[in-house]
Amino acid sequence: MSEPRTDITALAEAARRASRQLATTSTEQRNAVLNRLSEALDAHSTRLLAANAEDVRAAEGTLDASTLQRLRLDDTKVSAMVDGLRAVAALPDPLHQVQLCRELDAGLELTRVSCPLGVLCVVFEARPEALIQISALALKSGNAVLLKGGREAQHSNTALTALVQAALKASGLPEAAVQGLPDREAVHALLQRPDLVDLVIPRGSKALVQAIQAATRIPVLGHADGVCHMVLDAAADTAMAVALVRDAKLQYPAACNAVETLLIHRDAAARLLPALVADLEPRGAELRGCPACRELVPSLLPATEADWDAEYGAPILAMKVVADLDEALAHIRRHGSGHTEAIVTEDAAAAARFLAEVDAAGVFHNASTRFADGFRYGFGAEVGISTGRIHARGPVGLEGLLSHRYLLRGQGQVVSDYTGPAARKFRHKDKRINES
Amino acid sequence: MSEPRTDITALAEAARRASRQLATTSTEQRNAVLNRLSEALDAHSTRLLAANAEDVRAAEGTLDASTLQRLRLDDTKVSAMVDGLRAVAALPDPLHQVQLCRELDAGLELTRVSCPLGVLCVVFEARPEALIQISALALKSGNAVLLKGGREAQHSNTALTALVQAALKASGLPEAAVQGLPDREAVHALLQRPDLVDLVIPRGSKALVQAIQAATRIPVLGHADGVCHMVLDAAADTAMAVALVRDAKLQYPAACNAVETLLIHRDAAARLLPALVADLEPRGAELRGCPACRELVPSLLPATEADWDAEYGAPILAMKVVADLDEALAHIRRHGSGHTEAIVTEDAAAAARFLAEVDAAGVFHNASTRFADGFRYGFGAEVGISTGRIHARGPVGLEGLLSHRYLLRGQGQVVSDYTGPAARKFRHKDKRINES
Repeated sequence: MSEPRTDITALAEAARRASRQLATTSTEQRNAVLNRLSEALDAHSTRLLAANAEDVRAAEGTLDASTLQRLRLDDTKVSAMVDGLRAVAALPDPLHQVQLCRELDAGLELTRVSCPLGVLCVVFEARPEALIQISALALKSGNAVLLKGGREAQHSNTALTALVQAALKASGLPEAAVQGLPDREAVHALLQRPDLVDLVIPRGSKALVQAIQAATRIPVLGHADGVCHMVLDAAADTAMAVALVRDAKLQYPAACNAVETLLIHRDAAARLLPALVADLEPRGAELRGCPACRELVPSLLPATEADWDAEYGAPILAMKVVADLDEALAHIRRHGSGHTEAIVTEDAAAAARFLAEVDAAGVFHNASTRFADGFRYGFGAEVGISTGRIHARGPVGLEGLLSHRYLLRGQGQVVSDYTGPAARKFRHKDKRINES
Repeated sequence: MSEPRTDITALAEAARRASRQLATTSTEQRNAVLNRLSEALDAHSTRLLAANAEDVRAAEGTLDASTLQRLRLDDTKVSAMVDGLRAVAALPDPLHQVQLCRELDAGLELTRVSCPLGVLCVVFEARPEALIQISALALKSGNAVLLKGGREAQHSNTALTALVQAALKASGLPEAAVQGLPDREAVHALLQRPDLVDLVIPRGSKALVQAIQAATRIPVLGHADGVCHMVLDAAADTAMAVALVRDAKLQYPAACNAVETLLIHRDAAARLLPALVADLEPRGAELRGCPACRELVPSLLPATEADWDAEYGAPILAMKVVADLDEALAHIRRHGSGHTEAIVTEDAAAAARFLAEVDAAGVFHNASTRFADGFRYGFGAEVGISTGRIHARGPVGLEGLLSHRYLLRGQGQVVSDYTGPAARKFRHKDKRINES
């Protein structure tokens, strides 16, 4: 057991050294890797698809259909990776950005400049494309990354990592900037080393995220739960409510921003419920209702207490009649996961109260919860969605992979001149920043 | 043991409820508490000083002189608290600030708005003023706070907490927004509850910070170490180097941003060392040198390996001769704590390289490390100094106590319209933000 541990430390130390080198690279150097990688993917897609076919062959019969589908690469998915790399290369450089420029006094200038976090550890499941996406975001932002993909995608991931490392090498950058981790033990060893890893990003199931959060003191970027609610207020427009629920529940039920529970104002329940049932049931939705719902629509399945905390990941919807907005807000406080919460109403006061009071990463009025997404928000890239409050919250773009440094340029100034009865005063004069 | 635990949960849950109420308060309401508190401190200073005198009496003979001095309140310290509260009240409101306003499409508007973190747990040592400072910053930013001060300041802290709670009550805000924790067991119980506490801020010794970091998965804002270096380059100006070292080491040796180790370029050592010794020794500094230093100035005490990692908190300075900037940078990578690092040089290329390559919260050129401070940076308030890279780094103002929410206001838009072959395109048009 001691031999692999030593290797992991050496590997992570190599990542640290690579991250230092990346931190001082130019925009052009980092973009060159991404563009080279997109060309290589295009050129070597046959070899990549052959490696992936090995994984798929080995997995057939043991994995369920939807996991197999996520594992399988094809020309369309390779094209999407190629396009994704070009898109990330085309984004503005997040590094070396001056976020603050302040004259503390004559000849004493403070600037705050963005810099990489350092070394990321990313754990992901079946989808091999995740390796390319996360490598692209890490390299764009000057971070080194240690990757652990699913065992089922082993051959695909090895082939992809080799392509990334070749692109790094061809661009004169250290291959250790992107490395695969051999096994789960390696991940667990690293989770104990806040000195070697700066941020852990789990991309996968709730169980994966929770297991990692429980096992480490290193900051974890991600979300374990996505129990999103939609409140259908007394003043909800019927057609809009039906369209929004249909989209939020059925457009992609497996997504974390899909809605799980409807909270229906009792004054609107008799109007809204039959319309919802008529729209959703023919589309294959399974509807579960509280006793008040079932009084109005007796054919509904009964909802139990467990339904209010369920993230179905499936076309199942729990529905509850509430007395008023207060009860809806209390239900969300108790059962919500802080991901995305929405209200449907034509009542401006109710909407304003909902937007002001709900404590979640996303709080929406008359819009589908499915909009909670980095690309839809216009971030150009999405590192993940965070339901934590620290560092990043909501959909996280490249800024989630950044920190900053304060640079102070002086001419020999000392603090003792600025203290005591005859203290010099600071100017604290901000300069305009030319955003580049 | 089960009884106190229950109480702590109830107390923290009350803090959570109070934090929800604070999150929606106006600027005026929160400032009113701070102004009321400053008046109350002024009006009741006699009672406060009497409570403090009890603490001091009990501590005399058991605490060292410098701790006693930090524990003792007097009129000057009370005035400073009063002024500090007024200054925090006068700062711009950090809450409800629109950080981003983007039209995703016609009638679909995304805003990112600042909000409080929620519930802070602050652990501090001897200085009772810390209670007022941290309460002021927490309330200004809409956070509830659970406070655990040193046992030696028990009476002072009880008196101060009562004043804060009276000011909250008089302003129509929940007293539970600021509560004292009874003992260390209460803190340890809370450190296991990421559901009840959003951020832990230890203000005190390295041992305190490290013990808390090791005991919790809740994010911790702070720094355990302040091993700051000053590099005296070959092209350092002698007079400037001497003045900067004097300030960085002796102006306040107990500060975390005081310098601990000098790295002196060998081409400048014969010129600089005698000047440094002549200036610092008469001022009571204890100088420890590497063998090369002692060859030049044989009277120096010998530095051992342990000196390179020492944070003295005292007028002791370790000195090492280095062959070049590479060796200085490698020494800082190995021994630095990521707090503040400085170079003294007239060589613009050496300075540029140092500023670009050193990975620390503060990287300075020709300025004293003692400038690394929220007030000197012009933040108006300082929550602490962070050597972590996540969420906050360097001196942290009120922004370290904030998170944000994404608000989306629509007219019934659904994601399915923006997907597939006939997908509508997003506009992603940013609006100018009127900073208030």
